[in-house]
Formats: sequence, structure tokens, C-alpha cells
Amino acid sequence: MTDKPELEEGLVLAPQFGADGLVTAVVTDVATGDVLMVAHVNAEALAKTVESGEAWYYSRSRKKLWKKGESSGHVQRVIELRVDCDQDALWLKVEQSGPGACHTGRRSCFYRAVPLGQTGAVRLEFREAEKTFDPGKIYDKK
Amino acid sequence: MTDKPELEEGLVLAPQFGADGLVTAVVTDVATGDVLMVAHVNAEALAKTVESGEAWYYSRSRKKLWKKGESSGHVQRVIELRVDCDQDALWLKVEQSGPGACHTGRRSCFYRAVPLGQTGAVRLEFREAEKTFDPGKIYDKK
Repeated sequence: MTDKPELEEGLVLAPQFGADGLVTAVVTDVATGDVLMVAHVNAEALAKTVESGEAWYYSRSRKKLWKKGESSGHVQRVIELRVDCDQDALWLKVEQSGPGACHTGRRSCFYRAVPLGQTGAVRLEFREAEKTFDPGKIYDKK
Repeated sequence: MTDKPELEEGLVLAPQFGADGLVTAVVTDVATGDVLMVAHVNAEALAKTVESGEAWYYSRSRKKLWKKGESSGHVQRVIELRVDCDQDALWLKVEQSGPGACHTGRRSCFYRAVPLGQTGAVRLEFREAEKTFDPGKIYDKK
């Protein structure tokens, strides 16, 4: 199943997991189209997402399977799941429950912009910087 | 610069390149919000993108810096560049020149969906499967 034409034009789901057993998952808000987060998925997380219609990931830092929202309640209902041409990336269009997806307390993880047209060191600029929830209250409650 | 609060809340761009020297880049169409592709960026590609406002990547298969559109003419003008909370992923909102971003001849690399609510083997379903250009004509012209 690493035959390139079949991988690109076929109907068999054959995720090309890396040496670490993971593929990249891009998660967008189905309502706004904004990228909420980038995460990683192993075979088990993918199977659970496909079966349940809710987003499961693999945490590289905690080295464990992880259901989005298991601590925060901010689960993600997957409206559509897509796979890319060479099957090493996934795109999840989700309905994000609760006020946000980011562990810093924001709707999206991508709340800072890199100004363009510059050379050398750049200063980031906040966008949608407002926190929509208090992560200390959500994640330290246990 | 691996101090977590500074990384997440600071204004210094400090990309957390992996052991392979790369961070993940998600590329969306600024007009439609659709994810066009997922690529990889090293420090040099990032510097060139920031300086030029056009998208540069690093090709893992060809092991070289790569300007999107250098073969096809399908360059990407970066309208906004964002970085995520822990600075290991980028989001490029681009204006895609030409008919598409995918080397298979399609607008987006994510032209197949994985049906949800199933267990076991799944059959992919084509979405926006139509080819908007003939990749043989574009990429074999040299």
C-alpha cells in the first residue's frame, strides 16, 4: 500500500504513519474555517475518531492517547475528516464545544502573527489574543 | 527561549524546530478557508517566506529548500503568517496563484474524505476530485 498512484488516487485508507507512528492532524472550525490547532494521530486515535465521530489524538509529551476535551469538556465533534494526497496528513473539520481549543485559554492556538516583509529578528503581533476561558480553572480542577 | 510562558505569551519568534530541523506548516486558501496542503519549513525557508511574502518550504523527499510554484508557476502569496502557542506549527493564509496547490492536479491536497461512524476498513470518498490542471504538463515541462 505504498504504491504511489494507489495512495493518491485509490479508495483505501492507508495512513503513512511516520517512524514515530504518527500523522499530522490539522483541525479547523467548521463554522469559521479558522485553524484551531495542529495535533498528532496514531492508528488507535484515528480508529477511535472514525468510530465515534469525536476527535482523539496522541500526545507526544504525555506519550498517551488523548480524547480532546477529556479534561476541559471542550470536545470536538468531527463534521468531516479528510486525508491528503500522500496520506500523511489529516484535516478534521470540527464543531468545537465550549469556549476554545487552546490550552492557553484561547479559541485557537494560532493567536499570534509573524509580520511579513522583514529581515532579521521579528516581533510577533497578537491577534485574537483575548482569553475565552481561564485555563487554570479548567485544567487544574482535578 | 524554551521557557514555556515566554514561548506562549511572548513576542519573540522562536520556532521549535524538531530534531529534523523542521516545523509543520498548514496552508489555507485565504478566500475559501480550505486547507490546501500541509508542508514543512526549516529556518531558511521561514526566513525567505517572511522576507519575500511568498511561500518557501523544505522538501523532505528531495532534501532541499523549495519555493512553492518554482516548477509549476503556482506560487503562493502569503497574506498572513501565524504561529501556534508552543511555536512548533505555522499557519499560512495564502492567495494561491494558478489552478491549484496539489501535485496531483487538484486545488487542494485534501480531496478525499474518510466516512465516519464506522469500524474496520473504510472506503475513502472523493470530494472535489476534479483535476483543475494536468500535472504531467506542469511538472514534466523541463
